[in-house]
Amino acid sequence: MILYYTPHTCALASHIALEQAGADYQVKRIDFSKNEQRAPEYLRVNPKGRVPALVTSRGILTETPAILTFIAQSFPAAGLAPLDDPFALAQVQSFNSYLCSTVHVAHAHRMRGHRWADDPTAIEAMKKKAPQSVGACFDLIEHEMLQGPWVMGSIYTVCDMYLFTLPQWLEADGVDLRRLPKVADHRQRMSDTPVIARVIAAELAAS
Amino acid sequence: MILYYTPHTCALASHIALEQAGADYQVKRIDFSKNEQRAPEYLRVNPKGRVPALVTSRGILTETPAILTFIAQSFPAAGLAPLDDPFALAQVQSFNSYLCSTVHVAHAHRMRGHRWADDPTAIEAMKKKAPQSVGACFDLIEHEMLQGPWVMGSIYTVCDMYLFTLPQWLEADGVDLRRLPKVADHRQRMSDTPVIARVIAAELAAS
Repeated sequence: MILYYTPHTCALASHIALEQAGADYQVKRIDFSKNEQRAPEYLRVNPKGRVPALVTSRGILTETPAILTFIAQSFPAAGLAPLDDPFALAQVQSFNSYLCSTVHVAHAHRMRGHRWADDPTAIEAMKKKAPQSVGACFDLIEHEMLQGPWVMGSIYTVCDMYLFTLPQWLEADGVDLRRLPKVADHRQRMSDTPVIARVIAAELAAS
Repeated sequence: MILYYTPHTCALASHIALEQAGADYQVKRIDFSKNEQRAPEYLRVNPKGRVPALVTSRGILTETPAILTFIAQSFPAAGLAPLDDPFALAQVQSFNSYLCSTVHVAHAHRMRGHRWADDPTAIEAMKKKAPQSVGACFDLIEHEMLQGPWVMGSIYTVCDMYLFTLPQWLEADGVDLRRLPKVADHRQRMSDTPVIARVIAAELAAS
């Protein structure tokens, strides 16, 4: 398999899952600073012009929640999701769906407001609200969702890998981590795992 | 099971899936005009203050992609998703994930810009861009995603139910359906099915 990624993006979640699963994979870096995500050769891989994209023997998959569940199902021995319990799996998918549709979107208004408005004043207004909208998402994660010690309680799942990617941006989003002790502790414990340290080093080293 | 819904929202997809699966369920209507989605009794069901929410014997599920896959897995005889093929299931989930994280979000900038900016001028700027951003999403669906006759080709899946909910809003979003013949044909064929006519009538009849 080949994972197309960009450092410091949510593609990190899929990269961690592949490494944790013991998958045989390569990574290919897409450089946003060179606008490689809009280059014709990459648009043939992913017409959305986004990362991640996972090339498999059956075809190409995009969208982090779909890739994460696919990796979990493809490597059941790695135990990355409660595959035999439809309700527990639905809880995993619900968490991941909230991250992609609400949390990541709130964050994107600080970085990529041009997706939703052309007026520079409007783009500034979106940046200004990011601390509040991202903060509200993480308050909900802190108080209602993150069961502890892992997102789904005692089992370590793809939710933890996906959650790990987003709080990297909290300081820049203007959210004070001190009000989010469970999220901050989760981020620290994830950072300390050898698999994640290895993946992050690989992302930054690859050209 | 109990499905909390509001008419004319994406909760319709979960409602269609329950009906199509032959599930034993009730619906409860949440009235946005009375702000019932923020009422304390509903926030105990869904702290996010959104619809849909599905009450099951195991607990409450939110987020349309998670609910749809859960219904498909809970009623395998209904054949709502390719459950025995992880890659095909990942394609289903990828499509649903795109709808929730990108398409529905683009649409929401016409209706609910206050989520991402406070300045009324910014909210107007978001409304103004909706035809372009929603249109770009549907161009991709039309040309890259909707395999035909159904989203996943010859099999009718939860993707069709979810896709059906969003093109209802295209005219109001300022997107000309004439440039989207496959999407328009899909919407018409879905509207014509007895299950969907029954579900829509039930949504509007319930108080």
